[in-house]
Amino acid sequence: MKTFLIHLSLQQITSKIQGKLHLKNDTILTNVAELKEANENSVCFFENYKFLDDLKSSKAGLIFIPQDFDINLKPDTNLLLLEKPYISFVILIKYWLELCSSKKKREISNTAKISNSAQIDKNVAIGNNVVIEDFVKIGMNSIIEANSVIQKNVQIGSNCHIYPNVTIYEDCIIKDKVILHAGCIIGADGFGYIFYEGKHNKIPQVGNVIIEDEVEIGANSAIDRATIGSTIIGKGTKIDNLVQVGHNCNIGENSILCAQVGLAGSTEIGNVVYLAGQVGVAGHLKIDDEAMVGAQSGVAKDVPKKAKYFGTPALDAIQQKRMFISLKKLPEIIKKMKRDNRNSRNGK
Amino acid sequence: MKTFLIHLSLQQITSKIQGKLHLKNDTILTNVAELKEANENSVCFFENYKFLDDLKSSKAGLIFIPQDFDINLKPDTNLLLLEKPYISFVILIKYWLELCSSKKKREISNTAKISNSAQIDKNVAIGNNVVIEDFVKIGMNSIIEANSVIQKNVQIGSNCHIYPNVTIYEDCIIKDKVILHAGCIIGADGFGYIFYEGKHNKIPQVGNVIIEDEVEIGANSAIDRATIGSTIIGKGTKIDNLVQVGHNCNIGENSILCAQVGLAGSTEIGNVVYLAGQVGVAGHLKIDDEAMVGAQSGVAKDVPKKAKYFGTPALDAIQQKRMFISLKKLPEIIKKMKRDNRNSRNGK
Amino acid sequence: MKTFLIHLSLQQITSKIQGKLHLKNDTILTNVAELKEANENSVCFFENYKFLDDLKSSKAGLIFIPQDFDINLKPDTNLLLLEKPYISFVILIKYWLELCSSKKKREISNTAKISNSAQIDKNVAIGNNVVIEDFVKIGMNSIIEANSVIQKNVQIGSNCHIYPNVTIYEDCIIKDKVILHAGCIIGADGFGYIFYEGKHNKIPQVGNVIIEDEVEIGANSAIDRATIGSTIIGKGTKIDNLVQVGHNCNIGENSILCAQVGLAGSTEIGNVVYLAGQVGVAGHLKIDDEAMVGAQSGVAKDVPKKAKYFGTPALDAIQQKRMFISLKKLPEIIKKMKRDNRNSRNGK
Repeated sequence: MKTFLIHLSLQQITSKIQGKLHLKNDTILTNVAELKEANENSVCFFENYKFLDDLKSSKAGLIFIPQDFDINLKPDTNLLLLEKPYISFVILIKYWLELCSSKKKREISNTAKISNSAQIDKNVAIGNNVVIEDFVKIGMNSIIEANSVIQKNVQIGSNCHIYPNVTIYEDCIIKDKVILHAGCIIGADGFGYIFYEGKHNKIPQVGNVIIEDEVEIGANSAIDRATIGSTIIGKGTKIDNLVQVGHNCNIGENSILCAQVGLAGSTEIGNVVYLAGQVGVAGHLKIDDEAMVGAQSGVAKDVPKKAKYFGTPALDAIQQKRMFISLKKLPEIIKKMKRDNRNSRNGK
Repeated sequence: MKTFLIHLSLQQITSKIQGKLHLKNDTILTNVAELKEANENSVCFFENYKFLDDLKSSKAGLIFIPQDFDINLKPDTNLLLLEKPYISFVILIKYWLELCSSKKKREISNTAKISNSAQIDKNVAIGNNVVIEDFVKIGMNSIIEANSVIQKNVQIGSNCHIYPNVTIYEDCIIKDKVILHAGCIIGADGFGYIFYEGKHNKIPQVGNVIIEDEVEIGANSAIDRATIGSTIIGKGTKIDNLVQVGHNCNIGENSILCAQVGLAGSTEIGNVVYLAGQVGVAGHLKIDDEAMVGAQSGVAKDVPKKAKYFGTPALDAIQQKRMFISLKKLPEIIKKMKRDNRNSRNGK
Repeated sequence: MKTFLIHLSLQQITSKIQGKLHLKNDTILTNVAELKEANENSVCFFENYKFLDDLKSSKAGLIFIPQDFDINLKPDTNLLLLEKPYISFVILIKYWLELCSSKKKREISNTAKISNSAQIDKNVAIGNNVVIEDFVKIGMNSIIEANSVIQKNVQIGSNCHIYPNVTIYEDCIIKDKVILHAGCIIGADGFGYIFYEGKHNKIPQVGNVIIEDEVEIGANSAIDRATIGSTIIGKGTKIDNLVQVGHNCNIGENSILCAQVGLAGSTEIGNVVYLAGQVGVAGHLKIDDEAMVGAQSGVAKDVPKKAKYFGTPALDAIQQKRMFISLKKLPEIIKKMKRDNRNSRNGK
């Protein structure tokens, strides 16, 4: 249950979210909740009939519900009949959050340590113990939360949200409307050595990371800086928690990298690519636009456009599925072959 | 070797840990150690005869040893004969650590930044540069270590230990005797988007995380907040390092998630479930009570109670083992089939 | 593109990096870059003819190029002909970085919180909000960056570089020339419990971690402390991001652990071992010297010296490859067997 500081009337909600209201009692709405935890001041949604029992017993004050819903199944509650209840619910939450956040004033903490050479635009919030080094630029309306460290020459655009305990190494560029969750490390050294004289000699990593507009990166993910040049995360791409992106990778626009994905160095990911959880991709490969790779797959060669791949090493998902079905039958087949062999040896 | 500030006599130890003492020389014990690194002030244990050579050469001052041990094999050392030497050794260490910790006084650092609206119970320790935001509550005897960030409305129970550089997002609830290791992120946004108008639109994540009593979570693990409702970690469950728990997961009591496990969203894990290292679990599944899933498995459908599963996609471990043994034989079988075919074509 | 504060003339570079200079115009060099992003002040290298088009269109001021290169392919640019252009390029970057860094003066921030009992050697840099607890020792020329936490009794050698937001738990030992990237956690508790009385009882983890000379550890990796004794990372070993090393592991010298590798407890890794990305290794195993394990492999038994292993469970890579090739053929084989069976039943 999320309770908001600002309360809304039924009328305020229905003027924002337009649908057919089945009105039972006027009420004040203070929170959004799941059906089963709701109270009389909760707004909820219902879409999946799997949760019909939760709906029937729910104490919610207002429920967003499909247009074709039989209101006799929930007669005593305010219902708002909508074409897409869940999307409308999401729109309401966004509206409500914005209402509340516009009440907050943006402050720069006096415990933040900000270099004199840093350029901080207007309406920026900087939390406690944040460190902003020389020549950093931060665009307007951005928020840098407590205990994050922004190293020298970093550029952060406008309307970004950097959560606590983030580290951005020097020279990296974060464009507009980027969200970096807590513990993200942007721009640590790529993993590059040359083996000579009996040991691994570090190759200096003097490139950077460029994160385009509207990218979101999850908690404790790591995006390595390029050896030279840039590691690039394209516009609108979303990256989940604990993901590793190696040096000099180039990820396109609107792609999805689920949790614990790992990309080795110099790999290219196209636009609208989907990598499910724990996928690993070897270095210097290309995964083309709109390809999808199933969870835990290990990609060892290029993946063509719109392909669906799966497995380690990753192959076309249909082929992989056939192989797996065959493998399940294999123990019985081998048993039968032995029996047949024995029989034929015995002259049967 | 762990050296304690408080030293113990042989007598103090044998009054705490009762067994049959084979006494050689009275001594003062100052540390616990492995057999091979021990000195004359060390307490050690011996249980596994694989390490008999280490035992024989050990310089330990006191060794916890099985009741049926032949003391002629280690004649010149103080030996304490016990039914369960290792468990007794663990009990001694816990006792010794408590003796030392009760000497420490709990302090709130003057560099911590604590909101006036926060409620801090008695005997709480708060480290340097810790940030405690508005309306946070912290129960008695809890420890929050340096540079951690506790966001607004978070509740932390009593006797918790939050290590350095932890981030807890707003509204999360941590109950009693919870241990969060360094770098943990509790309550970052779940990974949820709706694709429309050619891009991924963020679904606001307005739920929270609830961590029940006696949970321990390892370094750099991430537990995402629910979209609405709560992501729940049940009482006594232990989670290792670098684990990902997606939004709206519900984990039962006394389960074990080993390092680098990843759970997608809305998955339900029962009680006393064991997930070995690097296991991945798809979303909206149920792994029932007392099930065990082998390392690196990819769980793609429900796992029944007490089942042992393995592989990607995960199947019953015995079936999976049979499949693997068959697969090992397959290259030879195919070679033989080719030979037989050739022979039959040749009329042999 | 990496721009240096100190600029170099062609002559300064050619006196440091000796080769045959194909001189076109004297110029000042200010940065290193990739061929395609270079400007007239850039130094670049060329080695791989895959990038010949990038070379031809490059605006670089100086290019390191193979001795046998046909200079008519790039006639209007300063070229330095070298036996090993890339290695020479790396040497130049290292030299240039050192030139610049020796201009920086080392400071201890007045916002760092340093215990009076800590011993800090000369020429150490300590960043903002760093916490240094009791009895810590830091050797000369080491750098501890902002918001890191060094707990009591930790020893850090000379010429180390600890990036921001690192946590080192008490009693750990970091030797000389060690690099720890941002978010690393060194010495969190090993994952050890004894199940009795219906729950998991924590085994106190009172050992430590020892990190030998010239080790580098990537962003957000976690190296757990030993239960008793030490978890050891041997000299010159390089560990990438998001790697998990369990308690009491012992890793040899000059080994490589790629990103997201996970080692369970008490595993022994030899010298010059290579573990590719996302490899998992079960507990109490030994991977012997110079062994290589392919990406995503799950190691479930010992790996012999110089072996190449792959797969889950990991086997000799050649055997594994044969099995995989056979498996790809299996669906067709089963189809054929069915056809043959039908035919023979039909008396054909």
